[in-house]
Amino acid sequence: MKFTAAKTNLVSSVSIALRAVPAHTTMNILQCIFIESSGAGLKLTGNDTELGIETYMPATIEIPGKIAVDAKMLSEIVRKLPDEIVTFSSDENYMITISCGKATFMIPGKSGEDFTELPVVERDDSITMTQFTLKSLILQTIFSIAQKDNNKIMTGECFEVNGSLLRVIALDGHRISMRRVALKEEASVPKRVIIPGKTLLEISRILSGEIDDIVTIFFARNHVVFEIPGTRIVSRLIDGEYFNIDQMISTDYQTKLIIPKAALQGCIERSLLFVRENDKKPIIFDMAETELRLSVQSPLGSFDETLDVTLEGKGFSIGFNPRFMLDALKVLDDETVTLYLVNSKAPCFIRDEDETYTYIVLPVNFVR
Amino acid sequence: MKFTAAKTNLVSSVSIALRAVPAHTTMNILQCIFIESSGAGLKLTGNDTELGIETYMPATIEIPGKIAVDAKMLSEIVRKLPDEIVTFSSDENYMITISCGKATFMIPGKSGEDFTELPVVERDDSITMTQFTLKSLILQTIFSIAQKDNNKIMTGECFEVNGSLLRVIALDGHRISMRRVALKEEASVPKRVIIPGKTLLEISRILSGEIDDIVTIFFARNHVVFEIPGTRIVSRLIDGEYFNIDQMISTDYQTKLIIPKAALQGCIERSLLFVRENDKKPIIFDMAETELRLSVQSPLGSFDETLDVTLEGKGFSIGFNPRFMLDALKVLDDETVTLYLVNSKAPCFIRDEDETYTYIVLPVNFVR
Repeated sequence: MKFTAAKTNLVSSVSIALRAVPAHTTMNILQCIFIESSGAGLKLTGNDTELGIETYMPATIEIPGKIAVDAKMLSEIVRKLPDEIVTFSSDENYMITISCGKATFMIPGKSGEDFTELPVVERDDSITMTQFTLKSLILQTIFSIAQKDNNKIMTGECFEVNGSLLRVIALDGHRISMRRVALKEEASVPKRVIIPGKTLLEISRILSGEIDDIVTIFFARNHVVFEIPGTRIVSRLIDGEYFNIDQMISTDYQTKLIIPKAALQGCIERSLLFVRENDKKPIIFDMAETELRLSVQSPLGSFDETLDVTLEGKGFSIGFNPRFMLDALKVLDDETVTLYLVNSKAPCFIRDEDETYTYIVLPVNFVR
Repeated sequence: MKFTAAKTNLVSSVSIALRAVPAHTTMNILQCIFIESSGAGLKLTGNDTELGIETYMPATIEIPGKIAVDAKMLSEIVRKLPDEIVTFSSDENYMITISCGKATFMIPGKSGEDFTELPVVERDDSITMTQFTLKSLILQTIFSIAQKDNNKIMTGECFEVNGSLLRVIALDGHRISMRRVALKEEASVPKRVIIPGKTLLEISRILSGEIDDIVTIFFARNHVVFEIPGTRIVSRLIDGEYFNIDQMISTDYQTKLIIPKAALQGCIERSLLFVRENDKKPIIFDMAETELRLSVQSPLGSFDETLDVTLEGKGFSIGFNPRFMLDALKVLDDETVTLYLVNSKAPCFIRDEDETYTYIVLPVNFVR
C-alpha cells in the first residue's frame, strides 16, 4: 500500500487507536495498529479483544492495501517527524517505509491476517449526550471502582438508563459514587449494563470534553459502542447482575452538616501527611454546635484542625478513610458540601438537593 | 524553642537545606534538618557529611533553642500549610508543634546533639561570578561525568582557575565536555580541584540563574564552599589528580564540517527511535561534498536522513554514539556547529572559534 497524509492527522489518529493497544501482551499481533485504505482515506484499528477502537482519517491513497504495524514504534516515529506531508508505503514483504522531509524510516510490518477486526454489533438502542457530559460522568465516578479483580463486577461502572434519566454508579465495597443526568431524548427500553473501568478511562482520554461535541452510546447484548465523529469504540460488557443500589440508599438522616468545601478539602489533604498509603488511619470528625474538629493520630505524628460549620441535629464523633472523603470532594464544584449522617456506624451521604450526585462513604472504627 | 515565621520563607529555606539530606541513609540523624535560632532569625542545616548546606531566614524568635526535625516530614508539612504566619515550638521532650491558621501538627523531633555541623574552612582563595554563569557552566558539562563509581575522579568535575580564566571539565572516558569563562578578577594562586558531581547538581538547583545574583566560590584544602546571599554550601573535594586534559586535546584537523545545529539535533533525536537504552548502535555520518547523510541500522528498523552542510577537506564515514552527540548539541545555542575531524578512528571536536566550549566525542567502530 502507499499513501500520503499530513503529519498532524497521522499523529492524532495513531494516538487514538493506540489507546486500545495493551501495554503488555504475549500476543504480538495485539501490539499492532492495523491500517487499511478505506474509500477516500484510512482506517486505523487497535484491538485488545476486550476494547477495540477504529478511527478514520483523511489521506491520499496511491496504492490501496492493508498492513499491521507495531503501535508503539509507529506512534514514536510519527510524533518525531517534521511537520510536513508524510509518505507511507509497504512492499510485498511487508517492509514499511515512512518518509517525511529528508528523513526516511524503515520498519518491518505484518500482513495483519491474524488481526481481529472489531465485532459488528446491533445499533438499535442508543442514547446521545455531549462529550463534556460523558467525560465528566466518568471522571466524577471512576475513582471508586475496585482496583482488584476479586469481584469482576466492581471493576466496572453501571450505566443505567430509565426513560430520560441516565445514572452512573461505581462502588468498591467501601464507598459508592453515583451521578445522575437527564438525557435530551427518552430511551425506548430501560438499560442496565456494566462497562469495564479500563474502557471508560480510555474513552475519557479520547473525548474532547466540549459541550458542542456529541457522543452516541449504543447498547448491544454483549457490547457497548461509543461513537464520536470519525471514531468508534467497541467494548465488551462485564457479565453479571450489578448490585441493587437502591436497597442501600436511604434518605433518612439524624444529622446534617454543611461545610465549606475548599476548607474541608484542604484540611483532609493536610491530614494525609500522617497517613501512609495502605495505612488504615482514620480521620476523625468531632461535631460540635458550630465547629467541626478533624484529627488524625498516627505513629508519624498528630494533626488537628477546626472548621466553622452548620450543624443540624445531634453532633457525634465518626471516623473515615481520609482518601475516600478526599476523592469525592475533589470532583465537586460546589462552595459548600452537605453531609447526611445517622450515627458513627452508619454510612455518610454527600449529596446535593437535586441528587445529581450522591457519594456514600462507610465509616471506620476508631479507638482513642 | 519557639518562633514564628512566614510560610513562604519557611518553605523556601527548608527546600534549600533539604538538598543536602540524603534520600536513603541508615543514619537517622542525617535525615534531619537542624534548626537553630541565630540572632534575629533562624539557621537551617542539612548535612550528608559529603555535602552540607546551611541557610538563614528571618523569623521572630520567642524562645531561643535548637532542634533536629525529620527533613522530609517538615518539608511536606510546611508546603501544605495555609499561606499564613506559622508558629513553631518544641517542648522539653523534643515534641514539635507547628500551627498555622486553625491547623495544628505535632511531630516528634530530636535534640540534634549528634548532628554534624558544617566544617569551618579557610576563606583565603576565592573567585566570584554570576549565578547565571555558574549554573550554565554546570548544566553544560555535568551530563558527561561518569555515572559509575569505578573511577571516583570521573564522577566529579575539574574546576581549574588560572589567572582570570576558569575552566570546567567533565569526562567519562568516551567524551569530554569543557567550558571556559573569563573571571572579572584575577585569582592570586592557580587552583585545580575535583568537585563531586552530586554537589554540582544540587547547587545548580539552588542557584537562581540570574545575571544580577552573585556566587562566591572558596577553595580550601579538602573542601569547596559556595556562598550565595543567605546560604552557604560546603562540599568535600574528590581526592586525586585530575586527568591532564591538554595532552589529549589537539587543534589539528583534516576535515571541518559546518552543520545547522537544530537540523542535526532533530535528526539525531529521530535516529534514537531505533537505539534502545544501553544499546551500542552507532549513528553513521557519511560526508559528501555538500551533504551529510546520517543513518542508523538496527534490528528494530533503519533510519536515514540527509542534511545540507559545508565540508572543508576530505569526506569520509564515521560512527558515533548518538546520545553523546545529542547531549552536547542540546546545550549549545549557536545556529551552526562546527565539527573538526581527522579520520574515522580519531575523536571528533565540536568547538566554537573562541574555544569557550569544546566537546569531544570518541568515534565507535561500525560494520556495514
